[in-house]
Amino acid sequence: MIRVQEGDEVVFSLTNPETNGRPHSMDFHAAETNFLEHYKEVRPGESLQYRFKAKWPGIFAYHCGASPMIQHIARGMMGAIIVDPKDPKALPKADREYVLVQSELFKDPDDVDGMFDRKYQHVVFNGSVFRYDPVHSKAGGDFLDAKPGERVRFYFVNAGPNNVSAVHPIAEIWDDVWESGNPANHTRGVQTQLIPPAGAAILDMVLDNNDGVYPIVTHSLTDALRGAIALLKVDKDARQLPLMPFVTPAK
Amino acid sequence: MIRVQEGDEVVFSLTNPETNGRPHSMDFHAAETNFLEHYKEVRPGESLQYRFKAKWPGIFAYHCGASPMIQHIARGMMGAIIVDPKDPKALPKADREYVLVQSELFKDPDDVDGMFDRKYQHVVFNGSVFRYDPVHSKAGGDFLDAKPGERVRFYFVNAGPNNVSAVHPIAEIWDDVWESGNPANHTRGVQTQLIPPAGAAILDMVLDNNDGVYPIVTHSLTDALRGAIALLKVDKDARQLPLMPFVTPAK
Amino acid sequence: MIRVQEGDEVVFSLTNPETNGRPHSMDFHAAETNFLEHYKEVRPGESLQYRFKAKWPGIFAYHCGASPMIQHIARGMMGAIIVDPKDPKALPKADREYVLVQSELFKDPDDVDGMFDRKYQHVVFNGSVFRYDPVHSKAGGDFLDAKPGERVRFYFVNAGPNNVSAVHPIAEIWDDVWESGNPANHTRGVQTQLIPPAGAAILDMVLDNNDGVYPIVTHSLTDALRGAIALLKVDKDARQLPLMPFVTPAK
Repeated sequence: MIRVQEGDEVVFSLTNPETNGRPHSMDFHAAETNFLEHYKEVRPGESLQYRFKAKWPGIFAYHCGASPMIQHIARGMMGAIIVDPKDPKALPKADREYVLVQSELFKDPDDVDGMFDRKYQHVVFNGSVFRYDPVHSKAGGDFLDAKPGERVRFYFVNAGPNNVSAVHPIAEIWDDVWESGNPANHTRGVQTQLIPPAGAAILDMVLDNNDGVYPIVTHSLTDALRGAIALLKVDKDARQLPLMPFVTPAK
Repeated sequence: MIRVQEGDEVVFSLTNPETNGRPHSMDFHAAETNFLEHYKEVRPGESLQYRFKAKWPGIFAYHCGASPMIQHIARGMMGAIIVDPKDPKALPKADREYVLVQSELFKDPDDVDGMFDRKYQHVVFNGSVFRYDPVHSKAGGDFLDAKPGERVRFYFVNAGPNNVSAVHPIAEIWDDVWESGNPANHTRGVQTQLIPPAGAAILDMVLDNNDGVYPIVTHSLTDALRGAIALLKVDKDARQLPLMPFVTPAK
Repeated sequence: MIRVQEGDEVVFSLTNPETNGRPHSMDFHAAETNFLEHYKEVRPGESLQYRFKAKWPGIFAYHCGASPMIQHIARGMMGAIIVDPKDPKALPKADREYVLVQSELFKDPDDVDGMFDRKYQHVVFNGSVFRYDPVHSKAGGDFLDAKPGERVRFYFVNAGPNNVSAVHPIAEIWDDVWESGNPANHTRGVQTQLIPPAGAAILDMVLDNNDGVYPIVTHSLTDALRGAIALLKVDKDARQLPLMPFVTPAK
């Protein structure tokens, strides 16, 4: 996860270690930049640096664009970049923030044909199956945390590579949604938000004053049940995570 | 179909008869409530009651959330709840209202693997194949009715469990669309509206002064041609249905 | 491609030559008209004429609706109709305009079952594989052109017949998007726009002052890599295409 402010100049360096077998590259959806020079493939042993101005506020995907791109994304070479609005009042203040990156996982990471045929095995948030769902996770899993009354903000990126996401909070409603995270694109009281592959949105949930648990799912149910469920546990003693760090389970 | 007003407290009781073989539950997308206590599975012979305040105006899905949820929804345990805005002028007055709930039907209702693999046989409005399409229906089918000049309102829920809907009125254009049915989320002159699985929208069509027929379809054509076509027949002698009752063919 | 102005009366004639083997018809998404009389199938050797008023501004799909409709669309009987707003200031002035129509291509154009099963081979813009992508195209391909600093407008139609499109400009961001092309439906700073099958949008990209190349893709990557990539080449000596003609490669 990368976080900058609207108007910032971002300086990015990519070094592909000599020990690697494949070229890689970096495509920031937050950038308006020179595709041929900056998004080109960097071969093992080579480096690339470029700069771009983060002109648009919001939440954006980034990913490797080396060929075959569908495989580089499916193998996890993607993530989220937040561009905070210059005007601090452009969005209501959030009490707590999370980044969730949805993606499809394939059984054989070298089966590019299977990726073309959408033969994914799991759909996940932040890279592993039921990562924030201790109820369903065989690997343990962890909760997302919040306190009663908080405004919890989700920076949601759908990395794909192929599927649409339909983000829904069970037993809650998105108070505010901003498409691509841009303050100008505001909708309210939304039950389920469609997020395109390689799209993103900011989704806010204002909690009431009670303890509780709220599952966040993609409501395309075959995808939810393959791993894309996160449980937000609301508790007055919730962990005091610093704002925004990429959510890393504490274990 | 359930209809309440914004701000209402809804009291809901679920009794699972002792003769049933499976647990069931109730998840209202119109509710912000206690997931663990209220959306839990109710076993045969047990009952559950809970209350929630309908805080957000709009049109929302509801469904059984008992495991495997994909199957309970696919077998038809879902529907629509309308929350009318408190301000009667928040939406233009409709002359006629319909509720359409889209869903995928599977050949073998116990083939949960097939549901995971999207191997549905039909896509339907309000539970049966071409229910409001006497042209295509083998079972007869019925028209939806309206009179020339009316503003016809569709409360459209996509119950899924998996697919996106692309709602389009043939030979018409949606005059007004409200995402999740919230008056704040207004778009105009929309030819085709995407509705996520477990999402919903209000879609208004203002008719001209002529008789006619307008098919409503999901324009993902494989889904339309498997059963998701409804014919709106416009006629100055249209049946005088009371506003809103869940559309039940008169036969 | 057809272009008219909001409020215009469109007079349309369809003649199905006697030498044809199948009926055809014409369904304009820009029309509010008599479905039974105007969208009916015209048999070989017959003709049909009808008029409609282009009431809503925007960009709309049109297609043949003869049975099986999924096949008539899949075989290419579809396109785009632009209805320019009556108010010339309703949209910012574009320096350059393109029409892109996305669709799925099937290997055997008579395999209607395969169309129902979404077994498409390619996804294309304006009818052929990588048509505007000389890098990937085996058939040659051509660039779309623009000059630095221009506002380039894409009238984007997704003809389907089944899939959603997720339109993204690589190394760029859509400055302005209008759903169905209606000036009332304005979003800004959008990285990826979902377009339903049989839906459309206007997407504007304001270029900076440098030369460059920007690929336009559907970011559902399996679809992009099967043929739905177009390269916009930005160059101070760009070809001076007249505004809007359906994009025909110059070769």
